[in-house]
Amino acid sequence: MSKYTRNKWRLKLHEIIYEADTPEGKLFDVVLLITILASILLVMLESVNSIDKNFHNFLNISEWVITILFTIEYIARILTVRKPLKYIFSFYGVIDLLSTIPKYISLIVGGVHALAALRALRLLRVFRILKLARYLGASNNLVNALKASKAKISVFLFAVIIVAIILGTIMYLVEGEENGFTNIPKSVYWCIVTLTTVGFGDIAPQTPLGQFIASLVMILGYGIIAVPTGIVSAEYTNQNKSDKAKESNNEEKEEPVHLNSQCCVNCLSEKHQDDAKFCFKCGCELNHD
Amino acid sequence: MSKYTRNKWRLKLHEIIYEADTPEGKLFDVVLLITILASILLVMLESVNSIDKNFHNFLNISEWVITILFTIEYIARILTVRKPLKYIFSFYGVIDLLSTIPKYISLIVGGVHALAALRALRLLRVFRILKLARYLGASNNLVNALKASKAKISVFLFAVIIVAIILGTIMYLVEGEENGFTNIPKSVYWCIVTLTTVGFGDIAPQTPLGQFIASLVMILGYGIIAVPTGIVSAEYTNQNKSDKAKESNNEEKEEPVHLNSQCCVNCLSEKHQDDAKFCFKCGCELNHD
Amino acid sequence: MSKYTRNKWRLKLHEIIYEADTPEGKLFDVVLLITILASILLVMLESVNSIDKNFHNFLNISEWVITILFTIEYIARILTVRKPLKYIFSFYGVIDLLSTIPKYISLIVGGVHALAALRALRLLRVFRILKLARYLGASNNLVNALKASKAKISVFLFAVIIVAIILGTIMYLVEGEENGFTNIPKSVYWCIVTLTTVGFGDIAPQTPLGQFIASLVMILGYGIIAVPTGIVSAEYTNQNKSDKAKESNNEEKEEPVHLNSQCCVNCLSEKHQDDAKFCFKCGCELNHD
Amino acid sequence: MSKYTRNKWRLKLHEIIYEADTPEGKLFDVVLLITILASILLVMLESVNSIDKNFHNFLNISEWVITILFTIEYIARILTVRKPLKYIFSFYGVIDLLSTIPKYISLIVGGVHALAALRALRLLRVFRILKLARYLGASNNLVNALKASKAKISVFLFAVIIVAIILGTIMYLVEGEENGFTNIPKSVYWCIVTLTTVGFGDIAPQTPLGQFIASLVMILGYGIIAVPTGIVSAEYTNQNKSDKAKESNNEEKEEPVHLNSQCCVNCLSEKHQDDAKFCFKCGCELNHD
Repeated sequence: MSKYTRNKWRLKLHEIIYEADTPEGKLFDVVLLITILASILLVMLESVNSIDKNFHNFLNISEWVITILFTIEYIARILTVRKPLKYIFSFYGVIDLLSTIPKYISLIVGGVHALAALRALRLLRVFRILKLARYLGASNNLVNALKASKAKISVFLFAVIIVAIILGTIMYLVEGEENGFTNIPKSVYWCIVTLTTVGFGDIAPQTPLGQFIASLVMILGYGIIAVPTGIVSAEYTNQNKSDKAKESNNEEKEEPVHLNSQCCVNCLSEKHQDDAKFCFKCGCELNHD
Repeated sequence: MSKYTRNKWRLKLHEIIYEADTPEGKLFDVVLLITILASILLVMLESVNSIDKNFHNFLNISEWVITILFTIEYIARILTVRKPLKYIFSFYGVIDLLSTIPKYISLIVGGVHALAALRALRLLRVFRILKLARYLGASNNLVNALKASKAKISVFLFAVIIVAIILGTIMYLVEGEENGFTNIPKSVYWCIVTLTTVGFGDIAPQTPLGQFIASLVMILGYGIIAVPTGIVSAEYTNQNKSDKAKESNNEEKEEPVHLNSQCCVNCLSEKHQDDAKFCFKCGCELNHD
Repeated sequence: MSKYTRNKWRLKLHEIIYEADTPEGKLFDVVLLITILASILLVMLESVNSIDKNFHNFLNISEWVITILFTIEYIARILTVRKPLKYIFSFYGVIDLLSTIPKYISLIVGGVHALAALRALRLLRVFRILKLARYLGASNNLVNALKASKAKISVFLFAVIIVAIILGTIMYLVEGEENGFTNIPKSVYWCIVTLTTVGFGDIAPQTPLGQFIASLVMILGYGIIAVPTGIVSAEYTNQNKSDKAKESNNEEKEEPVHLNSQCCVNCLSEKHQDDAKFCFKCGCELNHD
Repeated sequence: MSKYTRNKWRLKLHEIIYEADTPEGKLFDVVLLITILASILLVMLESVNSIDKNFHNFLNISEWVITILFTIEYIARILTVRKPLKYIFSFYGVIDLLSTIPKYISLIVGGVHALAALRALRLLRVFRILKLARYLGASNNLVNALKASKAKISVFLFAVIIVAIILGTIMYLVEGEENGFTNIPKSVYWCIVTLTTVGFGDIAPQTPLGQFIASLVMILGYGIIAVPTGIVSAEYTNQNKSDKAKESNNEEKEEPVHLNSQCCVNCLSEKHQDDAKFCFKCGCELNHD
């Protein structure tokens, strides 16, 4: 019997909040996901003037409800973890705090506008719950393909930026300030807009020479759009192949290990095996009901 | 002899309308296809003010001709099916009705504009005839590749939307209302316009910081445009390979079964084998001439 | 001895004009290519008002020089072919005539503007010379890949057009005439602009609902841009593979046959084998020096 | 003992400046890279009017510091090379000179604006240091894939330009000068903007026929964007495959040779083997400490 079995409710709460193996834990995650999405929707609607004017009270009350729910969750998370300080200063701990306090600050300061940025951080909380998707192994190939081609895409994007700076400077000299290319950074911005085939059109070349160079830039952009696609495509095909090779090669096949979503009450480390009795990181006993 | 052979004309008509194995059935489908396309063209032309003014009578009469043709077809479809209610409340039954009634409603109400939406539904009727294309098996690989990569593309598009919301909020705070980013939903809309490299330019960043972030958004969009392409490309290559593997592997080769376009007079189920005498779903005898 | 050896100069000229195996023939093609490109450049420069004003005489004289060169070439082509009528009414014969006559017509009528279209047809003449590139076999794989995926891309583009019509009608109803979506055809045009990620921005949704639907359209376009790329990519990979398979499979390897650019003086058919003495189509003797 | 050992400091300096095998050489390269990037940043900031007004003195002094650093480096490069003239008239020698002199020229002439082009050339100097990345062999596959598909992409881009000229002329005739298509070159420019899906929107078709043709152009562009992507993708997959084939085929595996960044003091040729004592090009002894 570990010393934690004394306060069973804390262990139970820990399991509900941090894990997703029990029905209560799954329910908690779904409710949290809906609350987060509702809070994001609130931030978005509040920024629309006409809606804010007509439904100000409703939005204000909803915001308070969500803030109080987040406050309760935040306190519960601190209470059920053994090392609260470690949680508070962890990445998600800081996000949780910043998602909760804007409404309290607005009581004192009142500047709602600048706090919208803080409240938008709530969206990052979605990833906490979505991390569970990792266990589903659904998109492993895709992630692997992206990882495998990360270095090459970085080199490629670096080359694109160098090309954009050189061509941007040329366009600045050719078109000049009277045609919207008021300075080199703006010219480089135009070049990126064009190379990526976005093409806002807020700045557009007016001189024949500028339009000729722009044509070259566009055809260049059209040609190089092929490169990252080709890389990801090829890497992804490779991932699929090596997957099949593994499947058909029975001798080397690893025994698949299921990692559940249990979370150590002591050190918060995750991905324990189903039959694990102790945390593989800190040795603290894991709680099973 | 089944009890349906009594009214032979109904069986004959059923074969013409619902099936495409006889010359009459094929002719009916072609005429119907042309009528549908003509009706769509009418809806489009009618919405052009200058055309509607000059050719109002011609358009009106044409619309009545098409409405009457559709009415006859709708009644014929009800008469030749054994369970008319099942047809009336089926997907295509509802579409057929909605394609037909707008002109009748306009007699009573007169609001032509709002009815254009109903009439545009006629386009969906095209799929009824085009479903025959499925039997040709022409684009099976493509459809399979899309099905196989559906889950991954969904995950990917979900990620794109989350990125758009985060970046949209940042742009709203950076650019502000004076530069066209009047609220967060509009800002997110701009972000999607940019990430997808559409770039309308109705809203465009004006501040240097906003243009810098926009550049990052565009390069990000340029980088991730590779992902769905890579997925579809790889899946499609796989489909082709497994096809060839099947072809070269003679032992496992299935006997190809030709499914004709016969349609049970009782339950409307399709894709019967060529030598089938009874419907494989309801057991009702199929009619052959 | 065939009866054509009587007028040797005609045979010689035929070889120079229609074939590219002799040094003279190659020189003729290069000169013709330069003349055609120069004539295209003339048409383009003449359309620029400021250039036309300042260099009107120079452009006029150059145009006459090119017209006379084309006239000589056209007459030479008729003289050296055995069946002139067949050449005159062939595709390239008509193009050659239309490329030549505009300047003569302008003497009588004087309307230069409308004749620019005819003169732009000269560009099509480039393909006559570029057809020689086929013998180089450089881009066979690419052409094969495109041919193999032609049917699928057609189906795909047809689907895109149907989607554009449906979404265009919806946007017409949502946005209405006051926001630039003045009629359904224009709305469909906007939809194609958006689906293809071009995004001119001359028409852009103004209402929140319209912007929401536009976002869906763009994400849809982003998702389906993957499809044709995936198809071509996969087909092209297949072409490469079957190429290599052929190369490694020595038994089935066909003896490569070199087809030269000789052109029968009688029936104008091309691609004769190097050791051919008679035309494989009409049996007429081929001329070798 | 070679005759170069007399002035050891020159050899030492040559190793630091031209090579990257010693700690000092690496430090020199990193400092140089930062100086070049800082100098580029200076050129960009100086072009922004508001920054130039407020921080004119700071920018001026920084520019002088960088110019003096570049001058010292340029002199050191000349001193440590055995054949200074060969360096001075080499590609990088000219770039180095042009990167250095603008500030000196501005003392005499004063026209800062036109010299910005010269100063932007400094960016090309980055490639001198980045060439070291070649030794890492990181992106060899990518470069090979691009090289292998270069010819095909060229043919493809040439076809795109021909299509743009033909369609541009048609649009010029259809839309005319009153809708922004003032001349054929501008019309061709619009066509390239549209085919590449950039879509600035500074010129957009206004007539229904023009919009219809524009729709065809866009769908065409959408269809052909697949081609270069497919080519690069397939070639890149091939590169990966042949790589793996080589790896699995042990008999043919070449002994990997490490080429260091040493640079011959006599002829400036690079990529010597680690155990090389003499330059493989000119036979001059290489210096090792």
